Amino acid sequence: MKIFVLSTLVASALIAGSLQSEAQKAGLKPIPASKTALTKLTSNPKNPTTTAKVELGKMLYMDPRLSKSGLISCNTCHNVGLGGSDGMSAAIGHKWTANPHGLSSPTVYNAVFYSQQFWDGRSPHLEDQAQGPIQAGPEMAAPKEHVTGVVNSIPQYVAMFQKAYGKDVKITFEKVADTIAVFERTLVTPSRYDDFLNGNAKALTTPEKKGLKTFISKGCATCHNDIALGGTMQAFGVTGKYKHMNVGDFKGDKNGMVRVPTLRNITQTSPYFHNGQIATLGEAIKEMGRIQLGVSLTDEETASIETFLKALDGRKPNITYPMFPASNATTPKVDVN
Amino acid sequence: MKIFVLSTLVASALIAGSLQSEAQKAGLKPIPASKTALTKLTSNPKNPTTTAKVELGKMLYMDPRLSKSGLISCNTCHNVGLGGSDGMSAAIGHKWTANPHGLSSPTVYNAVFYSQQFWDGRSPHLEDQAQGPIQAGPEMAAPKEHVTGVVNSIPQYVAMFQKAYGKDVKITFEKVADTIAVFERTLVTPSRYDDFLNGNAKALTTPEKKGLKTFISKGCATCHNDIALGGTMQAFGVTGKYKHMNVGDFKGDKNGMVRVPTLRNITQTSPYFHNGQIATLGEAIKEMGRIQLGVSLTDEETASIETFLKALDGRKPNITYPMFPASNATTPKVDVN
Repeated sequence: MKIFVLSTLVASALIAGSLQSEAQKAGLKPIPASKTALTKLTSNPKNPTTTAKVELGKMLYMDPRLSKSGLISCNTCHNVGLGGSDGMSAAIGHKWTANPHGLSSPTVYNAVFYSQQFWDGRSPHLEDQAQGPIQAGPEMAAPKEHVTGVVNSIPQYVAMFQKAYGKDVKITFEKVADTIAVFERTLVTPSRYDDFLNGNAKALTTPEKKGLKTFISKGCATCHNDIALGGTMQAFGVTGKYKHMNVGDFKGDKNGMVRVPTLRNITQTSPYFHNGQIATLGEAIKEMGRIQLGVSLTDEETASIETFLKALDGRKPNITYPMFPASNATTPKVDVN
Repeated sequence: MKIFVLSTLVASALIAGSLQSEAQKAGLKPIPASKTALTKLTSNPKNPTTTAKVELGKMLYMDPRLSKSGLISCNTCHNVGLGGSDGMSAAIGHKWTANPHGLSSPTVYNAVFYSQQFWDGRSPHLEDQAQGPIQAGPEMAAPKEHVTGVVNSIPQYVAMFQKAYGKDVKITFEKVADTIAVFERTLVTPSRYDDFLNGNAKALTTPEKKGLKTFISKGCATCHNDIALGGTMQAFGVTGKYKHMNVGDFKGDKNGMVRVPTLRNITQTSPYFHNGQIATLGEAIKEMGRIQLGVSLTDEETASIETFLKALDGRKPNITYPMFPASNATTPKVDVN
């Protein structure tokens, strides 16, 4: 009996080892298991992650008073409770304005692992990205002076900035965005898939392992690779046209390239694609096969890939709802118009 | 030295005792210090508070998918991080619609202690109240079938309802509202003022005690009394007219009575009054003196009352941000129009 158990374990390790190598060759990488390694990987050397910055960044991320109206926070469209997105096809912002290009809000979770930010990849990192939606007219619509005015008017916020950056800190718009980015850098979600790639052969079920094999063999990892299973710029509609390209006028970057979305927590971020026009994961997988890989995936292959993708649901950080410091007479007034 | 300390303590206790009696005579009551007494007081006998219901109620309270658009939750206008309100003068809801009567969102904190809900007191309790804004066109705009459709389509929600109410639970719209109300019943914020009324003579500073005396002697406790320091129906503009009654068409209930807002956490819920037209606490205090009590409060009296009111800032419950269970293909689609 003991011999049988041992040999089963060895066999399982060998099979798993083989699949792990295959995944590695396909460019797939796990979120590091070691907390130190993860912090090193996700921290910005120019603005290292500290507890004080993360706590402050979380408050700023969730504080709707940073918007012109006082109603919209980063968390409105990148809701940490809704897989880091909003469940909408096109994002809705200030004055109930839909995204003018019909673009869907990407998830904030694991965005730290992207090599570019925004669907057209125009931003190199989260610090830069965070400045965009706060100011954008159809999103939070806040002039820089509104944001710095709010934060500097609230003594507890000033004290938190001083705790995070030192007594002489100047609270600029860029500093606010930097601090939000520090929080976002902590929003990573290790999953059973990572446990598997990090050496726990039993972390995935047999059907999930089969799904991972299908995922690799069909070529999905050509674009959905590295830690994020996405996050790089890739061509748009390589072997076919999107069925739903009639929504918006988005054409990618100047070369027609689009930032590949992460597949982590993909069960939580429907509707799918940059324009949110695909409702289910099964449809999304088939459509990607058709227009990006030029393959017609069978129902069985599609289901197998979907089974694997479900194993990418990750463990979320525990987030305590922030109790925001109160506004006062000097705080800039909100303006819903 | 020992004798001196003792005599000081006794003196302090006597003075405090006297002010405590005065407060009691004026109809002021503390939030009970005992957790058991508090739960008994705030729990609905027809739907007793349990951990399972509170956890589920919190999720439903914060889940924007209960709204027609998928963007607005109870927490949008009654933000637990912003003193339980939204910092707006008039509430903004579905399709960026302002409250048609120019009404401001009242705080959810300590609303359990009110004898009536809504500014016109038309609702007897939180269970009934919670049904209103979810359906109201200018708020969450959700038909009952949308709400029950969303909840019943998500297996984890169904499981949580079964855990809270038993296997045979029928998840109706009313059951959803009841569960949200159970969560709201836990949103109470004991403060140093309560500690003082509950017997800790040192819980308030001397200026705060002086402010409480002024508050009582000027007649503020005529309307702002009981546990909530508010929450009953009172006449509107007894000795004068609001300076800002030109906003909206709100005239109170059929007898012109208005539900008195709580003064707890009042530093966090500006702008003030039913129409949110008063920016600062000092102005609000003076205006109330003028139009409700027919007195012209001096700057010193106003400041003294304000000092007391600041001691009503309470200790908030610790709220973990819920990770909502994912939507699926059977979940009703959001509709921003």
